[in-house]
Amino acid sequence: MAIPRGSRVIAGIGDDCAIFRPRGGKEDLLFTTDLLIEGVHFERATHSATVAGHKALARGLSDIAAMGGRALFCLLSLGLPEWADDRWADEFYGGVLRLAKSTGVVLAGGDLARARRVTCDIVVGGSVPRGRALRRDGARVGDFIYVSGSLGGSAHGLDTQRGRAWERHLRPRPRLALGRYLREKLHATACTDLSDGLSLDLRRLCQASKVSAEIEAPPVFPGATMEHALHGGEDYELLFTVRAATRVPARFENVTLTRIGVIRRGAAGRVRLDGQPLAPLGYDHFRRS
Amino acid sequence: MAIPRGSRVIAGIGDDCAIFRPRGGKEDLLFTTDLLIEGVHFERATHSATVAGHKALARGLSDIAAMGGRALFCLLSLGLPEWADDRWADEFYGGVLRLAKSTGVVLAGGDLARARRVTCDIVVGGSVPRGRALRRDGARVGDFIYVSGSLGGSAHGLDTQRGRAWERHLRPRPRLALGRYLREKLHATACTDLSDGLSLDLRRLCQASKVSAEIEAPPVFPGATMEHALHGGEDYELLFTVRAATRVPARFENVTLTRIGVIRRGAAGRVRLDGQPLAPLGYDHFRRS
Repeated sequence: MAIPRGSRVIAGIGDDCAIFRPRGGKEDLLFTTDLLIEGVHFERATHSATVAGHKALARGLSDIAAMGGRALFCLLSLGLPEWADDRWADEFYGGVLRLAKSTGVVLAGGDLARARRVTCDIVVGGSVPRGRALRRDGARVGDFIYVSGSLGGSAHGLDTQRGRAWERHLRPRPRLALGRYLREKLHATACTDLSDGLSLDLRRLCQASKVSAEIEAPPVFPGATMEHALHGGEDYELLFTVRAATRVPARFENVTLTRIGVIRRGAAGRVRLDGQPLAPLGYDHFRRS
Repeated sequence: MAIPRGSRVIAGIGDDCAIFRPRGGKEDLLFTTDLLIEGVHFERATHSATVAGHKALARGLSDIAAMGGRALFCLLSLGLPEWADDRWADEFYGGVLRLAKSTGVVLAGGDLARARRVTCDIVVGGSVPRGRALRRDGARVGDFIYVSGSLGGSAHGLDTQRGRAWERHLRPRPRLALGRYLREKLHATACTDLSDGLSLDLRRLCQASKVSAEIEAPPVFPGATMEHALHGGEDYELLFTVRAATRVPARFENVTLTRIGVIRRGAAGRVRLDGQPLAPLGYDHFRRS
């Protein structure tokens, strides 16, 4: 959607966060909003209230990480059904607040209502130095494509419901420090988080940048399949591009950084894996079933 | 909830908006989030998609008005059930976007998901000059209490589903210009919007300001009962206090401004109507049925 001229919103729908420019300040503010709905994003039978709260905030924090931002505050809207008693609500808030505390985020407000199913919307606000947000639309022909960590763990965990992969699914760790490192030190040209699967998220990055991509197989989470790694959602790793001359270390803190391909001229959004077209099979909330 | 020291969130849960202070800027930013859930805040049978979209944004704009702010942008999260086809969604967005355009607000981002019932969360961002937001906690003993317009129209409209009262319920008009006037010209000491009913919203203002209130009957919307006016929600008029010496005009633009009482020393949050205790019977989303 077009942003009107004269507006102080300098990027809107189509990136991980909206960017707002305060008057006279030295920073841009980032905003992202994410729904977490029982039966869609989590199941009452398998996800505790604490886990649901953690995931709700983690989704938004990952969007801030993808823009190279610092997360500052969040607003939490929560619709609760009759079965969700005070204890459930307390544990949900506990899951939110523990992750908020560990990432320096303040719960600044919210709304509460009755609903048929647990329905949560979290807005996270963050900041970056003015004009420096990492965006999806900056990848240029010849840039190298990288991912952090290994992929498919969350999808594999959802299948098996045990082990490290299940833990990865239940308690994703947004790559906030990595996002800032990519912006400050590696001067990444584009970045997005892997929330809906590599095939779909890379397609979106390439569409925004009006380029195509050639990749090889990404690192696969132990036990996961290549399908999980290519199309599984909710890994919350970062996908980014850098100029070919940039020296990218093999790891940042405990997270591997792996080159998986290169940006090419060509149809905007086209992705090839080992020379074959890669269909965007990741999870698309807009797709009508 | 306590706001940690060193945080840049300078007011949080408990006022109409959270207040965030950008570094080095001349303004404070306001944020509010409001849920709109089918079966709770609107009914598919009686509320068109356009009306639902209008109401979703109007709720947030009213919070910005209550702080004396200018509304700048919004983020819209929308969960849609299977029955909501593209036409319904287009009309919903149309309702949001028409009100957004008429109030100078940019739709800057959002999220979309499947849900069992239509579930919408709108965040509105706004601004006020630094340190000048109207808050709930500034009412002082001896201040006069005012309301804008007449009350109970929305509740009466919900009962009768016709005429001006129904129109008031369906298409509330947030008092944005009035809110800025109260801040800039009348130097209101406290303000809140009437979203949950006068009895409850005045109680909350008095609790925040640690004072009590004595009021007489407020102006009643034509056809509505005194019960509607005292306890009915969703009027989205403004309730405010000013120093007793302040000259308040009888109207601002087309909206009447009526003195209904005075702030007194006494138990925080206690409200008396014509000398009798007024129970806070307004709509409280936190109350368990």
